[in-house]
Amino acid sequence: MSKSSDSISKWVIRRLPRYYRFLMELEKAGIAKISSAELAKKMGFTASQIRQDLNCFGGFGQQGYGYNVTALRAEIQEILGLNTRQNAILIGAGNLGKAVATHIEFEKRGLSLCAVFDNNPALIGNQIGQLTVRDISSLEEVCSSEKPSVAVLCIPKEAARNLADRLIALGIKGFWNFSHYDLLHHSDHIVVENVHLSDSLMTLNYLVKNTQEK
Amino acid sequence: MSKSSDSISKWVIRRLPRYYRFLMELEKAGIAKISSAELAKKMGFTASQIRQDLNCFGGFGQQGYGYNVTALRAEIQEILGLNTRQNAILIGAGNLGKAVATHIEFEKRGLSLCAVFDNNPALIGNQIGQLTVRDISSLEEVCSSEKPSVAVLCIPKEAARNLADRLIALGIKGFWNFSHYDLLHHSDHIVVENVHLSDSLMTLNYLVKNTQEK
Repeated sequence: MSKSSDSISKWVIRRLPRYYRFLMELEKAGIAKISSAELAKKMGFTASQIRQDLNCFGGFGQQGYGYNVTALRAEIQEILGLNTRQNAILIGAGNLGKAVATHIEFEKRGLSLCAVFDNNPALIGNQIGQLTVRDISSLEEVCSSEKPSVAVLCIPKEAARNLADRLIALGIKGFWNFSHYDLLHHSDHIVVENVHLSDSLMTLNYLVKNTQEK
Repeated sequence: MSKSSDSISKWVIRRLPRYYRFLMELEKAGIAKISSAELAKKMGFTASQIRQDLNCFGGFGQQGYGYNVTALRAEIQEILGLNTRQNAILIGAGNLGKAVATHIEFEKRGLSLCAVFDNNPALIGNQIGQLTVRDISSLEEVCSSEKPSVAVLCIPKEAARNLADRLIALGIKGFWNFSHYDLLHHSDHIVVENVHLSDSLMTLNYLVKNTQEK
Protein backbone atom coordinates (compact mmCIF):
# COMPACT_ATOMS: atom_id res chain seq x y z
CA MET A 1 0.00 0.00 0.00
CA SER A 2 2.62 2.53 0.94
CA LYS A 3 5.72 3.43 -1.04
CA SER A 4 9.02 2.12 0.22
CA SER A 5 10.52 4.47 2.78
CA ASP A 6 13.48 5.20 0.50
CA SER A 7 11.29 6.89 -2.07
CA ILE A 8 9.48 9.20 0.36
CA SER A 9 10.88 12.70 0.36
CA LYS A 10 12.58 13.89 3.52
CA TRP A 11 10.26 16.89 3.53
CA VAL A 12 7.17 14.73 3.69
CA ILE A 13 8.71 12.74 6.54
CA ARG A 14 9.52 15.96 8.33
CA ARG A 15 5.85 16.97 8.18
CA LEU A 16 4.52 13.63 9.43
CA PRO A 17 5.07 14.34 13.16
CA ARG A 18 3.00 17.46 12.72
CA TYR A 19 0.16 15.55 11.09
CA TYR A 20 0.42 13.08 13.92
CA ARG A 21 0.10 15.79 16.58
CA PHE A 22 -2.88 17.42 14.90
CA LEU A 23 -4.68 14.11 14.40
CA MET A 24 -4.09 13.17 18.04
CA GLU A 25 -5.76 16.42 19.03
CA LEU A 26 -8.73 15.90 16.74
CA GLU A 27 -9.15 12.39 18.08
CA LYS A 28 -9.06 13.67 21.66
CA ALA A 29 -11.69 16.24 20.73
CA GLY A 30 -13.90 13.38 19.50
CA ILE A 31 -13.75 14.30 15.81
CA ALA A 32 -14.16 11.20 13.63
CA LYS A 33 -13.52 12.57 10.15
CA ILE A 34 -11.98 15.62 8.57
CA SER A 35 -11.65 16.94 5.03
CA SER A 36 -8.27 17.91 3.60
CA ALA A 37 -9.57 21.50 3.41
CA GLU A 38 -10.39 21.60 7.14
CA LEU A 39 -7.10 19.93 8.07
CA ALA A 40 -5.25 22.39 5.83
CA LYS A 41 -6.87 25.34 7.58
CA LYS A 42 -5.94 24.01 11.03
CA MET A 43 -2.36 23.23 10.07
CA GLY A 44 -1.56 26.21 7.88
CA PHE A 45 -0.85 23.99 4.85
CA THR A 46 -2.76 23.93 1.56
CA ALA A 47 -5.33 21.20 0.97
CA SER A 48 -3.47 20.04 -2.12
CA GLN A 49 -0.22 19.68 -0.16
CA ILE A 50 -2.02 17.55 2.40
CA ARG A 51 -3.51 15.30 -0.27
CA GLN A 52 -0.11 15.01 -1.95
CA ASP A 53 1.71 14.23 1.31
CA LEU A 54 -0.73 11.56 2.41
CA ASN A 55 -0.78 10.02 -1.05
CA CYS A 56 2.90 9.14 -0.54
CA PHE A 57 1.70 6.57 1.95
CA GLY A 58 -1.09 5.25 -0.20
CA GLY A 59 -3.65 7.93 0.69
CA PHE A 60 -6.30 7.40 3.30
CA GLY A 61 -9.06 9.72 2.19
CA GLN A 62 -12.29 8.95 0.41
CA GLN A 63 -13.55 11.54 -2.03
CA GLY A 64 -16.52 13.39 -0.58
CA TYR A 65 -16.00 11.84 2.86
CA GLY A 66 -12.61 13.07 4.02
CA TYR A 67 -10.14 11.32 6.27
CA ASN A 68 -11.01 8.91 9.06
CA VAL A 69 -9.11 10.58 11.92
CA THR A 70 -8.38 7.48 14.02
CA ALA A 71 -7.35 5.32 11.07
CA LEU A 72 -5.08 8.03 9.69
CA ARG A 73 -3.54 8.72 13.12
CA ALA A 74 -2.91 5.00 13.64
CA GLU A 75 -1.35 4.62 10.20
CA ILE A 76 0.99 7.58 10.67
CA GLN A 77 1.89 6.28 14.13
CA GLU A 78 2.85 2.98 12.55
CA ILE A 79 4.79 4.66 9.72
CA LEU A 80 6.69 6.80 12.23
CA GLY A 81 7.65 3.62 14.10
CA LEU A 82 6.05 4.78 17.34
CA ASN A 83 4.74 1.31 18.17
CA THR A 84 8.23 -0.10 18.66
CA ARG A 85 11.14 1.15 20.77
CA GLN A 86 14.83 1.59 20.10
CA ASN A 87 17.27 2.45 22.85
CA ALA A 88 18.80 5.89 23.15
CA ILE A 89 21.59 7.28 25.32
CA LEU A 90 22.15 10.88 26.34
CA ILE A 91 25.61 12.41 26.71
CA GLY A 92 25.90 15.52 28.86
CA ALA A 93 24.03 15.84 32.16
CA GLY A 94 24.22 19.62 32.51
CA ASN A 95 21.20 21.95 32.44
CA LEU A 96 20.33 21.21 28.85
CA GLY A 97 20.82 17.44 29.11
CA LYS A 98 18.73 17.38 32.25
CA ALA A 99 15.94 19.36 30.58
CA VAL A 100 15.97 17.09 27.55
CA ALA A 101 15.96 13.94 29.70
CA THR A 102 13.07 15.09 31.85
CA HIS A 103 11.04 17.17 29.40
CA ILE A 104 11.06 14.99 26.27
CA GLU A 105 8.73 11.99 26.23
CA PHE A 106 11.07 9.51 24.58
CA GLU A 107 8.69 6.57 25.04
CA LYS A 108 6.00 8.36 23.05
CA ARG A 109 8.47 9.02 20.23
CA GLY A 110 9.50 5.41 19.64
CA LEU A 111 12.57 5.47 21.88
CA SER A 112 13.63 4.41 25.30
CA LEU A 113 16.23 6.51 27.10
CA CYS A 114 18.39 3.88 28.79
CA ALA A 115 21.44 5.78 30.07
CA VAL A 116 22.84 9.26 30.70
CA PHE A 117 26.59 9.94 30.69
CA ASP A 118 28.91 12.74 31.69
CA ASN A 119 32.62 13.13 32.34
CA ASN A 120 32.18 15.66 35.16
CA PRO A 121 32.71 14.01 38.58
CA ALA A 122 30.31 16.56 40.10
CA LEU A 123 27.47 15.22 37.94
CA ILE A 124 28.26 11.49 37.87
CA GLY A 125 25.96 9.67 40.28
CA ASN A 126 23.24 12.35 40.09
CA GLN A 127 19.70 11.16 39.57
CA ILE A 128 17.80 12.37 36.48
CA GLY A 129 14.30 10.90 36.58
CA GLN A 130 14.76 7.13 36.76
CA LEU A 131 18.37 7.24 35.57
CA THR A 132 21.66 7.69 37.39
CA VAL A 133 24.32 9.71 35.55
CA ARG A 134 27.15 7.36 34.58
CA ASP A 135 30.82 7.99 33.96
CA ILE A 136 31.52 8.33 30.23
CA SER A 137 34.22 5.69 30.71
CA SER A 138 31.46 3.07 30.99
CA LEU A 139 30.15 3.94 27.51
CA GLU A 140 31.52 0.80 25.85
CA GLU A 141 30.13 -1.49 28.53
CA VAL A 142 26.65 0.05 28.44
CA CYS A 143 26.47 0.13 24.64
CA SER A 144 27.44 -3.51 24.41
CA SER A 145 24.61 -4.54 26.74
CA GLU A 146 21.89 -2.01 25.85
CA LYS A 147 22.66 -1.71 22.13
CA PRO A 148 21.40 1.87 21.73
CA SER A 149 20.98 3.09 18.18
CA VAL A 150 20.45 6.78 18.99
CA ALA A 151 22.70 9.21 20.90
CA VAL A 152 21.52 12.59 22.19
CA LEU A 153 24.42 15.04 22.40
CA CYS A 154 24.08 17.84 24.98
CA ILE A 155 27.79 18.56 25.22
CA PRO A 156 30.19 21.28 24.07
CA LYS A 157 31.47 21.39 20.52
CA GLU A 158 34.88 19.90 21.25
CA ALA A 159 33.44 16.96 23.15
CA ALA A 160 31.00 16.24 20.31
CA ARG A 161 33.78 16.34 17.75
CA ASN A 162 35.79 13.87 19.80
CA LEU A 163 32.95 11.49 20.64
CA ALA A 164 31.18 11.14 17.28
CA ASP A 165 33.42 8.45 15.80
CA ARG A 166 33.59 6.53 19.08
CA LEU A 167 29.79 6.43 19.21
CA ILE A 168 29.48 5.32 15.59
CA ALA A 169 31.96 2.52 16.29
CA LEU A 170 29.70 1.46 19.17
CA GLY A 171 26.72 1.07 16.85
CA ILE A 172 25.04 4.48 17.07
CA LYS A 173 23.06 5.08 13.86
CA GLY A 174 21.43 8.39 14.67
CA PHE A 175 22.39 11.58 16.50
CA TRP A 176 20.08 14.12 18.08
CA ASN A 177 22.67 16.84 18.22
CA PHE A 178 22.23 19.88 20.49
CA SER A 179 25.93 20.71 20.46
CA HIS A 180 27.31 23.59 18.39
CA TYR A 181 29.40 21.14 16.41
CA ASP A 182 27.82 20.61 12.98
CA LEU A 183 27.83 16.87 12.76
CA LEU A 184 27.94 16.21 9.06
CA HIS A 185 26.71 12.88 7.83
CA HIS A 186 29.69 10.61 8.28
CA SER A 187 28.20 8.03 5.94
CA ASP A 188 24.91 7.14 4.28
CA HIS A 189 24.03 4.95 7.25
CA ILE A 190 24.27 7.68 9.86
CA VAL A 191 21.37 10.03 10.44
CA VAL A 192 21.77 13.41 12.13
CA GLU A 193 19.17 15.85 13.43
CA ASN A 194 21.02 19.01 14.39
CA VAL A 195 19.08 21.16 16.84
CA HIS A 196 20.82 24.52 16.66
CA LEU A 197 18.88 26.52 19.21
CA SER A 198 21.18 29.53 18.93
CA ASP A 199 20.79 29.65 15.15
CA SER A 200 17.03 29.61 15.57
CA LEU A 201 17.22 32.47 18.08
CA MET A 202 19.49 34.54 15.83
CA THR A 203 17.09 34.04 12.93
CA LEU A 204 14.18 35.18 15.09
CA ASN A 205 16.17 38.18 16.31
CA TYR A 206 16.95 39.16 12.72
CA LEU A 207 13.37 38.75 11.56
CA VAL A 208 11.92 40.79 14.43
CA LYS A 209 14.42 43.59 13.88
CA ASN A 210 13.77 43.60 10.12
CA THR A 211 10.01 43.12 10.00
CA GLN A 212 8.55 46.56 9.59
CA GLU A 213 4.97 47.37 10.23
CA LYS A 214 3.54 48.33 6.85
CA MET B 1 25.63 47.97 -0.60
CA SER B 2 23.31 45.28 0.64
CA LYS B 3 19.83 44.56 -0.62
CA SER B 4 16.93 45.67 1.54
CA SER B 5 16.09 43.02 4.12
CA ASP B 6 12.66 42.49 2.57
CA SER B 7 14.14 41.11 -0.61
CA ILE B 8 16.43 38.56 1.06
CA SER B 9 15.04 35.06 1.01
CA LYS B 10 14.15 33.52 4.35
CA TRP B 11 16.38 30.58 3.46
CA VAL B 12 19.45 32.75 3.11
CA ILE B 13 18.66 34.38 6.44
CA ARG B 14 18.27 30.98 8.03
CA ARG B 15 21.79 30.05 6.88
CA LEU B 16 23.42 33.27 8.12
CA PRO B 17 23.80 32.16 11.77
CA ARG B 18 25.67 29.14 10.51
CA TYR B 19 28.04 31.26 8.45
CA TYR B 20 28.51 33.40 11.51
CA ARG B 21 29.43 30.43 13.72
CA PHE B 22 31.89 29.03 11.20
CA LEU B 23 33.54 32.39 10.62
CA MET B 24 33.89 32.94 14.38
CA GLU B 25 35.70 29.63 14.58
CA LEU B 26 38.02 30.43 11.70
CA GLU B 27 38.79 33.79 13.28
CA LYS B 28 39.58 32.13 16.62
CA ALA B 29 41.88 29.73 14.80
CA GLY B 30 43.74 32.73 13.38
CA ILE B 31 42.68 32.20 9.77
CA ALA B 32 42.60 35.52 7.88
CA LYS B 33 41.09 34.51 4.55
CA ILE B 34 39.19 31.63 3.06
CA SER B 35 37.98 30.70 -0.42
CA SER B 36 34.36 29.83 -1.08
CA ALA B 37 35.52 26.30 -1.95
CA GLU B 38 37.22 25.81 1.42
CA LEU B 39 34.30 27.33 3.30
CA ALA B 40 31.92 25.09 1.33
CA LYS B 41 33.88 22.00 2.31
CA LYS B 42 33.84 22.94 5.99
CA MET B 43 30.14 23.76 6.04
CA GLY B 44 28.80 21.01 3.81
CA PHE B 45 27.39 23.54 1.30
CA THR B 46 28.44 23.97 -2.32
CA ALA B 47 30.82 26.79 -3.23
CA SER B 48 28.28 28.25 -5.62
CA GLN B 49 25.61 28.36 -2.92
CA ILE B 50 28.01 30.24 -0.66
CA ARG B 51 28.82 32.77 -3.37
CA GLN B 52 25.12 33.19 -4.12
CA ASP B 53 24.17 33.58 -0.46
CA LEU B 54 26.83 36.16 0.29
CA ASN B 55 26.03 38.05 -2.89
CA CYS B 56 22.61 38.82 -1.41
CA PHE B 57 24.41 41.13 0.98
CA GLY B 58 26.59 42.71 -1.65
CA GLY B 59 29.29 40.02 -1.69
CA PHE B 60 32.49 40.33 0.28
CA GLY B 61 34.86 38.19 -1.72
CA GLN B 62 37.57 39.19 -4.14
CA GLN B 63 38.18 36.91 -7.09
CA GLY B 64 41.37 34.93 -6.59
CA TYR B 65 41.73 36.07 -3.00
CA GLY B 66 38.71 34.66 -1.20
CA TYR B 67 36.89 36.11 1.76
CA ASN B 68 38.44 38.21 4.49
CA VAL B 69 37.30 36.24 7.53
CA THR B 70 37.14 39.08 10.06
CA ALA B 71 35.45 41.52 7.68
CA LEU B 72 32.87 38.94 6.63
CA ARG B 73 32.20 37.89 10.22
CA ALA B 74 31.77 41.52 11.28
CA GLU B 75 29.42 42.24 8.39
CA ILE B 76 27.22 39.19 9.10
CA GLN B 77 27.22 40.12 12.79
CA GLU B 78 25.93 43.56 11.83
CA ILE B 79 23.34 42.16 9.41
CA LEU B 80 22.09 39.73 12.07
CA GLY B 81 21.66 42.67 14.42
CA LEU B 82 23.98 41.20 17.05
CA ASN B 83 25.49 44.58 17.90
CA THR B 84 22.24 45.89 19.36
CA ARG B 85 19.92 44.40 21.98
CA GLN B 86 16.18 43.98 22.17
CA ASN B 87 14.46 42.79 25.33
CA ALA B 88 13.01 39.30 25.62
CA ILE B 89 10.82 37.67 28.26
CA LEU B 90 10.49 33.97 29.00
CA ILE B 91 7.20 32.37 30.03
CA GLY B 92 7.43 29.04 31.85
CA ALA B 93 10.02 28.40 34.56
CA GLY B 94 9.88 24.58 34.53
CA ASN B 95 12.77 22.34 33.48
CA LEU B 96 12.74 23.47 29.89
CA GLY B 97 12.38 27.18 30.67
CA LYS B 98 15.18 26.92 33.18
CA ALA B 99 17.46 25.18 30.69
CA VAL B 100 16.71 27.76 28.00
CA ALA B 101 17.28 30.67 30.41
CA THR B 102 20.60 29.33 31.66
CA HIS B 103 21.94 27.56 28.56
CA ILE B 104 21.17 30.05 25.80
CA GLU B 105 23.47 33.07 25.50
CA PHE B 106 20.82 35.68 24.75
CA GLU B 107 23.28 38.58 24.93
CA LYS B 108 25.38 37.04 22.15
CA ARG B 109 22.28 36.65 19.97
CA GLY B 110 21.17 40.28 20.03
CA LEU B 111 18.76 39.94 22.93
CA SER B 112 18.58 40.64 26.60
CA LEU B 113 16.46 38.32 28.74
CA CYS B 114 14.82 40.73 31.17
CA ALA B 115 12.14 38.66 32.94
CA VAL B 116 10.90 35.10 33.54
CA PHE B 117 7.25 34.38 34.36
CA ASP B 118 5.22 31.45 35.61
CA ASN B 119 1.75 30.95 37.10
CA ASN B 120 2.85 28.15 39.44
CA PRO B 121 3.19 29.42 43.04
CA ALA B 122 5.86 26.75 43.65
CA LEU B 123 8.09 28.36 41.01
CA ILE B 124 7.35 32.06 41.54
CA GLY B 125 10.20 33.65 43.49
CA ASN B 126 12.76 31.04 42.37
CA GLN B 127 16.08 32.33 41.13
CA ILE B 128 17.17 31.48 37.56
CA GLY B 129 20.59 32.97 36.94
CA GLN B 130 20.23 36.70 37.65
CA LEU B 131 16.45 36.67 37.35
CA THR B 132 13.70 35.99 39.87
CA VAL B 133 10.66 34.14 38.52
CA ARG B 134 7.68 36.54 38.52
CA ASP B 135 3.98 35.92 38.76
CA ILE B 136 2.38 35.96 35.30
CA SER B 137 -0.09 38.50 36.70
CA SER B 138 2.69 41.11 36.57
CA LEU B 139 3.09 40.63 32.80
CA GLU B 140 1.38 43.92 31.87
CA GLU B 141 3.42 45.93 34.35
CA VAL B 142 6.75 44.45 33.27
CA CYS B 143 6.00 44.78 29.56
CA SER B 144 5.05 48.40 29.95
CA SER B 145 8.38 49.23 31.63
CA GLU B 146 10.78 46.84 29.83
CA LYS B 147 9.11 46.91 26.39
CA PRO B 148 10.19 43.42 25.33
CA SER B 149 9.72 42.58 21.66
CA VAL B 150 10.39 38.83 21.93
CA ALA B 151 8.65 36.19 24.06
CA VAL B 152 10.08 32.72 24.66
CA LEU B 153 7.28 30.22 25.32
CA CYS B 154 8.20 27.18 27.44
CA ILE B 155 4.66 26.37 28.50
CA PRO B 156 2.01 23.76 27.67
CA LYS B 157 -0.08 24.01 24.54
CA GLU B 158 -3.21 25.35 26.23
CA ALA B 159 -1.31 28.10 28.03
CA ALA B 160 0.37 29.14 24.78
CA ARG B 161 -2.94 29.29 22.97
CA ASN B 162 -4.37 31.50 25.70
CA LEU B 163 -1.38 33.81 26.06
CA ALA B 164 -0.49 34.54 22.44
CA ASP B 165 -2.98 37.33 21.83
CA ARG B 166 -2.33 38.89 25.23
CA LEU B 167 1.39 39.03 24.45
CA ILE B 168 0.84 40.52 21.00
CA ALA B 169 -1.38 43.20 22.57
CA LEU B 170 1.53 43.97 24.91
CA GLY B 171 3.85 44.65 21.99
CA ILE B 172 5.51 41.26 21.43
CA LYS B 173 6.63 41.03 17.80
CA GLY B 174 8.38 37.68 17.82
CA PHE B 175 7.84 34.31 19.49
CA TRP B 176 10.44 31.65 20.19
CA ASN B 177 7.94 28.90 20.67
CA PHE B 178 8.88 25.64 22.45
CA SER B 179 5.27 24.77 23.23
CA HIS B 180 3.41 22.11 21.26
CA TYR B 181 0.92 24.72 20.10
CA ASP B 182 1.64 25.62 16.48
CA LEU B 183 1.61 29.37 16.67
CA LEU B 184 0.59 30.43 13.20
CA HIS B 185 1.53 33.87 12.06
CA HIS B 186 -1.22 36.06 13.43
CA SER B 187 -0.28 38.85 11.07
CA ASP B 188 2.50 39.97 8.78
CA HIS B 189 4.08 41.85 11.68
CA ILE B 190 4.46 38.85 13.97
CA VAL B 191 7.40 36.49 13.57
CA VAL B 192 7.36 32.94 14.93
CA GLU B 193 10.18 30.42 15.32
CA ASN B 194 8.58 27.15 16.34
CA VAL B 195 11.03 24.79 18.02
CA HIS B 196 9.26 21.46 17.95
CA LEU B 197 11.74 19.21 19.72
CA SER B 198 9.40 16.23 19.70
CA ASP B 199 8.85 16.50 15.95
CA SER B 200 12.60 16.55 15.44
CA LEU B 201 13.00 13.45 17.61
CA MET B 202 10.22 11.59 15.77
CA THR B 203 11.84 12.43 12.44
CA LEU B 204 15.17 11.08 13.69
CA ASN B 205 13.50 7.95 15.04
CA TYR B 206 11.84 7.35 11.67
CA LEU B 207 15.05 7.91 9.73
CA VAL B 208 17.13 5.60 11.93
CA LYS B 209 14.52 2.86 11.71
CA ASN B 210 14.24 3.25 7.92
CA THR B 211 17.86 3.80 6.95
CA GLN B 212 19.12 0.45 5.80
CA GLU B 213 22.77 -0.35 5.46
CA LYS B 214 23.36 -0.89 1.77
